[in-house]
Amino acid sequence: MKKSLGAKPIAYPAPVWVVGSYDSSGKPNLMTAAWGGICCSNPPSITISLRKGRYTFQCIKESKGFTVNIPSEKYAAEADYVGMVSGKDVDKFAVTGLTEEKAEFVDAPYVKEFPLILECTLSQTHKVGVHIQFIGTILDVKADESVLGDDDLPLLDKIKPILFAPVSYSYYRSGRLLGTAFSMGDKFKNQ
Amino acid sequence: MKKSLGAKPIAYPAPVWVVGSYDSSGKPNLMTAAWGGICCSNPPSITISLRKGRYTFQCIKESKGFTVNIPSEKYAAEADYVGMVSGKDVDKFAVTGLTEEKAEFVDAPYVKEFPLILECTLSQTHKVGVHIQFIGTILDVKADESVLGDDDLPLLDKIKPILFAPVSYSYYRSGRLLGTAFSMGDKFKNQ
Repeated sequence: MKKSLGAKPIAYPAPVWVVGSYDSSGKPNLMTAAWGGICCSNPPSITISLRKGRYTFQCIKESKGFTVNIPSEKYAAEADYVGMVSGKDVDKFAVTGLTEEKAEFVDAPYVKEFPLILECTLSQTHKVGVHIQFIGTILDVKADESVLGDDDLPLLDKIKPILFAPVSYSYYRSGRLLGTAFSMGDKFKNQ
Repeated sequence: MKKSLGAKPIAYPAPVWVVGSYDSSGKPNLMTAAWGGICCSNPPSITISLRKGRYTFQCIKESKGFTVNIPSEKYAAEADYVGMVSGKDVDKFAVTGLTEEKAEFVDAPYVKEFPLILECTLSQTHKVGVHIQFIGTILDVKADESVLGDDDLPLLDKIKPILFAPVSYSYYRSGRLLGTAFSMGDKFKNQ
């Protein structure tokens, strides 16, 4: 039996992504985004939604570049913290001890300790309710060599990305391999 | 040491969501979407990206309604299958044995067996490269009573949503509770 919960932004899994940008003075900033996802294969593009009041909003509007930094579960406290305070008030790299690296293709910093980094250039913005949706073209993906499989693609179970459960404000771990896409469904073919 | 992987649509976790819609004759259809995410808190909104050639694309353009059906890991084969074939050719409910229910607030079907359902009305469309991004306002969330916690919110570890790893085409399980948002980061405050 299903229960109606009303109009709420509940969908699983939501990501825990840390967005890196520079402000106009060149100070690096970080914020946590859970509203986002890949939105195109070609050109590879990703969307994140921010409120206008966020410090990162102005940074990206000006620099046109940002990074999406995907933390391992061991960096959950750091990822949580950078979503709790504003870069107007604190230097989040300094407080968390995370290491800033300058991105290669865009004017934005990335987090050296996080295993997967996307370098993105702003391509579109759309207002959706109280949020602004930034769409970025992914110019490069960088991964720690330690998380790569034999085919030089990152393995999700080595990255151990965090999952966010909206509304209930909980973080969950990612888990073990379940199967291969475009293959598990074969059993329903030729029925 | 980080390795550059080039411009690829890689970000973790990507969701495995099954989108329900009716065609103009009232036939129910399902497709799998991994390009998507929540994109606004108020009004609660979700985005999914489709290619124009998909059968579901025309269905949603016409009906202006769709459901996002979140499968448990035990329905991974069903979710995979509905992303492999077109609703032009087959009745995916019939082939998979999934049960169609009519949504309450929008003109779309949902999957009775899946534990979490979002009923969405189309609010915006944007072209992003080879994809069209549909933004839907979430009018209602429906959850199986068996996945609800004491606060009547769904528990991610009872729903057991599937994670998709793009490019490597792998599905992963979701995992155990890691911590509480806006709380784990407290240790960095007042430093």
